[in-house]
Amino acid sequence: MQRKTVKRKQTPVPPVRIGVSPASANGRVKHKETIGRYLIQRLQDYGLRDIFGIPGDFVLQFYGMLEESPIRVIGCTREDSAGYAADAYARVHGLGAVCVTYCVGGLSLCNSIAGAFAEKSPVIVISGAPGIHERRNDPLLHHKVRDFNTQREIFEKITVASASLDDPLTAFREIDRCLEAAVRFKRPVYLEMPRDRVQAEALGPHQPLSLTLQSNEQALDAALKEARERIANAKSPVIIAGVEIHRFGLQSEVIALAEKNQMPMCATLLGKSVVSERHPLYMGVYEGAMGRQQVTEFVESSDCVMLLGTFMTDINLGIYTAKLDPSRCIYVTSEQLRIGHHHFHDVLLRDFVTGLGKEKVRKSKTPFPAHVPRTHGKHAQKDKVTIRSMFDYFDHILQEQMVVVADVGDSLFAASDLTIHKHTEFLSPAYYTSMGFALPAALGVQVANRDLRPLVLVGDGAFQMTGMELSTVVRHGFNPIVVVLNNKGYTTERFLQEGPFNDILNWNYHRVPDLLGAGWGFEVRTFGELQQSMQAALAHKDAFSILNVHLEPNDVSPALERLAAKMSKQL
Amino acid sequence: MQRKTVKRKQTPVPPVRIGVSPASANGRVKHKETIGRYLIQRLQDYGLRDIFGIPGDFVLQFYGMLEESPIRVIGCTREDSAGYAADAYARVHGLGAVCVTYCVGGLSLCNSIAGAFAEKSPVIVISGAPGIHERRNDPLLHHKVRDFNTQREIFEKITVASASLDDPLTAFREIDRCLEAAVRFKRPVYLEMPRDRVQAEALGPHQPLSLTLQSNEQALDAALKEARERIANAKSPVIIAGVEIHRFGLQSEVIALAEKNQMPMCATLLGKSVVSERHPLYMGVYEGAMGRQQVTEFVESSDCVMLLGTFMTDINLGIYTAKLDPSRCIYVTSEQLRIGHHHFHDVLLRDFVTGLGKEKVRKSKTPFPAHVPRTHGKHAQKDKVTIRSMFDYFDHILQEQMVVVADVGDSLFAASDLTIHKHTEFLSPAYYTSMGFALPAALGVQVANRDLRPLVLVGDGAFQMTGMELSTVVRHGFNPIVVVLNNKGYTTERFLQEGPFNDILNWNYHRVPDLLGAGWGFEVRTFGELQQSMQAALAHKDAFSILNVHLEPNDVSPALERLAAKMSKQL
Repeated sequence: MQRKTVKRKQTPVPPVRIGVSPASANGRVKHKETIGRYLIQRLQDYGLRDIFGIPGDFVLQFYGMLEESPIRVIGCTREDSAGYAADAYARVHGLGAVCVTYCVGGLSLCNSIAGAFAEKSPVIVISGAPGIHERRNDPLLHHKVRDFNTQREIFEKITVASASLDDPLTAFREIDRCLEAAVRFKRPVYLEMPRDRVQAEALGPHQPLSLTLQSNEQALDAALKEARERIANAKSPVIIAGVEIHRFGLQSEVIALAEKNQMPMCATLLGKSVVSERHPLYMGVYEGAMGRQQVTEFVESSDCVMLLGTFMTDINLGIYTAKLDPSRCIYVTSEQLRIGHHHFHDVLLRDFVTGLGKEKVRKSKTPFPAHVPRTHGKHAQKDKVTIRSMFDYFDHILQEQMVVVADVGDSLFAASDLTIHKHTEFLSPAYYTSMGFALPAALGVQVANRDLRPLVLVGDGAFQMTGMELSTVVRHGFNPIVVVLNNKGYTTERFLQEGPFNDILNWNYHRVPDLLGAGWGFEVRTFGELQQSMQAALAHKDAFSILNVHLEPNDVSPALERLAAKMSKQL
Repeated sequence: MQRKTVKRKQTPVPPVRIGVSPASANGRVKHKETIGRYLIQRLQDYGLRDIFGIPGDFVLQFYGMLEESPIRVIGCTREDSAGYAADAYARVHGLGAVCVTYCVGGLSLCNSIAGAFAEKSPVIVISGAPGIHERRNDPLLHHKVRDFNTQREIFEKITVASASLDDPLTAFREIDRCLEAAVRFKRPVYLEMPRDRVQAEALGPHQPLSLTLQSNEQALDAALKEARERIANAKSPVIIAGVEIHRFGLQSEVIALAEKNQMPMCATLLGKSVVSERHPLYMGVYEGAMGRQQVTEFVESSDCVMLLGTFMTDINLGIYTAKLDPSRCIYVTSEQLRIGHHHFHDVLLRDFVTGLGKEKVRKSKTPFPAHVPRTHGKHAQKDKVTIRSMFDYFDHILQEQMVVVADVGDSLFAASDLTIHKHTEFLSPAYYTSMGFALPAALGVQVANRDLRPLVLVGDGAFQMTGMELSTVVRHGFNPIVVVLNNKGYTTERFLQEGPFNDILNWNYHRVPDLLGAGWGFEVRTFGELQQSMQAALAHKDAFSILNVHLEPNDVSPALERLAAKMSKQL
């Protein structure tokens, strides 16, 4: 195989500003640029520094090219974990990428990329593929399923743009189009690269594309005017910040809006930690009947509810127990803007939120229920550890540079009341709710920012799905603290329908370090053991720690109890 | 939630005869039969005794129904593993099934079901889904990706039939159609069940469908006549038996054909063990330039090559190094029949192979190279274990009730020369070559037949993908012997393109029993240690054993060396 040596100046690439679509640093592409090298250059233009994945023969040549580029390749144990890691990386860094081989690799990514689509995380999926010259006569090449289009057609369903880079005439434009779409819509895109096109050269000059969307100015002005009037005249306005505020990098604009007008803020569960939970105007998570009663009552009696970048999902809305009268709402996302019953088109989320945050329109300050931190430290050392005492304790020890990564089930629901110190420090799949997200996501977090230390909250069932991705954590010397909520089965489902299918094997999770040859394991039964092992874990900064926390199968958070009661009615 | 108690006579169900499409045992369905119960009844009609999967809220009600039926639910740790297990179960038992929840479950199955499609394994995929009544106004229900059709549209690409059971008027017919297609085409099918349709009742009487395909008699006769003439007049005819001979249950027909006419037989790599490798007429695996030279020469100089149920895949054909002149071939599969350059339509594989095996048309016996068992037992105890000494030894100890389950890479290539005693005792993903198949497949084998003891040959990279499915092996007290070929990375790929992306963490695989609380672990460095630990593993029939066999990263089988040399030219 012929391999060309690629050398390029390694100028330090600043982290991509979320929501900013950079123009190419280079202008027109160099003469004789290849498809593979151009893709790598464009990824760097967008600030990408790392890529996750697993090699395979249909993508090996591109892996060789990546290895010679400044982009760091993070090999994972499984493709779906690589997808979760890339998703989390995108949530922290602004854009993520995963590179895999054909079908056996790509089709193993479907679920994690579907989750990134559902929760708006921009992940670039790059898949190798059989060479075009190999496809004549439709041979049965290994890894082929039905025909050579099968994988691409599948990814069309779960990405916002996709392309096969099979023609050097169009490939450069297609790369631009797909990367642009990922950044604009904050959703995954798919690029398939036949292995005999990696080294294919541009057929002519190419100018990298960089489109900028703009609001309709008149619609924007009209919407801002109407919104400001509502806010100014409201008795008790309230902001509900959703996950898109994070995705589009609008946190400080939302804070400005709240502070200028002294209005309280909530977050959705998916958007938890979008605004700092230590902020004096922060009330807590709003989630209908599942949330804290004072918050729910305040929001639902408000005469001006500003839903900013919020997905109206069933879990965000407490399985539709939320009571939000549309006529009292200002609802804006990247996809729509509605003030009461007035719909506005062609107004960008960024422009609307930024515009609102620029002016002070209220003088009075509305009293609101303060965000009450839990009591903590009042549990006896010898008491069996419970969900309640554990989360009380975590609320106490969360530090500035920690990020809570919660899996689904009670890891998520109990964590919803934790106080997160800064913004973007709580990651979870709170809408798509895919079990097994958290551990690989913690890997993605530390690849994106080595200084963040993840506190991973994961059920035993979820750990059995993807927990062994700790293997990759060990390879890179990362140091997450992994808390396995070991309640011996699928506890959330026990509340919906009990049956032996909810039982799983009781692993000695604290023995994972023996298998991997690194890390610190702790078995926890009492509150005292929890304190001791967590203190030890915090002190061991050289490697991961894993706490096997034994819980009663039926010990759940009040939030889960309320949720399960509601969900079981839907069965 | 309302749950009805289902009681039905548990008459013992005989194992389904592969390729036989049974009529329903019951005739017309009972009055007020529900969609869920009917599906369970039809699965039983086809001889299904076990189903793999993981529950989730959109499928919990159906899980409750399964729990009350005679079908045993095998909970796995991950959906993709459940898919592999169902695939292997289908290969052993004739039909397999997997039941999962919506999207987070279903989309995690894509890769294993794609593999079952590619290698013709009939797996019924059953997925829960949001209720029809929940879908009004297109709400953002958890687990939803793009719209409520996304998952079904994806599975249309990787199954041979699919249906959403959303209307009781059509659901019963759709169940019949899809199950029939799975058995007829030996490929996966997809059934989606909205959770508010599980208890929906038939709107009228329904007669279970059972179609039987028939050959065009005249075309069949003409084809048989022509084939017999070729066989009778050939100087050195040879049979190459492919995997479809197993899928359609035609092993004894092929043996009859060979014995009556004293013709030698080969197998393809994917079809390995379709005919007993101890049979005196068996020559070995034919795989072009990759195979044993004597076999290759005999086949390629034969004037009548009968390719029976053989996929012409790149790996089966030694990455297209096979030299088979079509004018000298009889090529029959479930999809086509070609004798020389004569194509025959409407002739079933079964009828053609059975017809050929009925008559003796040759008197002379052609001399052919015998299947040479390896030498063995000649390795010094203190020598480092190598691929060669290990497989020599395995060839010696393989017992009648053992089944070799090989993962991809050298686990597969080196295993291609092992001598398998009976037929259907070698399982591998030799066409789709999905890493991580073997361990969950061994689970599927023992669920299908508790008396078979799997010898699992798996690379370290593959074990890191799905090896922890040993958890489910422990729950059921199964006893596979798992041999981890620990060469510290993706060795097959090292031969194609070396790079740090081929490195993986070196786990203490022999410590898995500490994590799971069961099983026997062995660390193996010398040939003597291999012998001792394998003898101990054979003696420990109560649980799984795992051998961590340390190999040099560049120690590979001659077959892999030849394959890699060929594949690297394709990069």
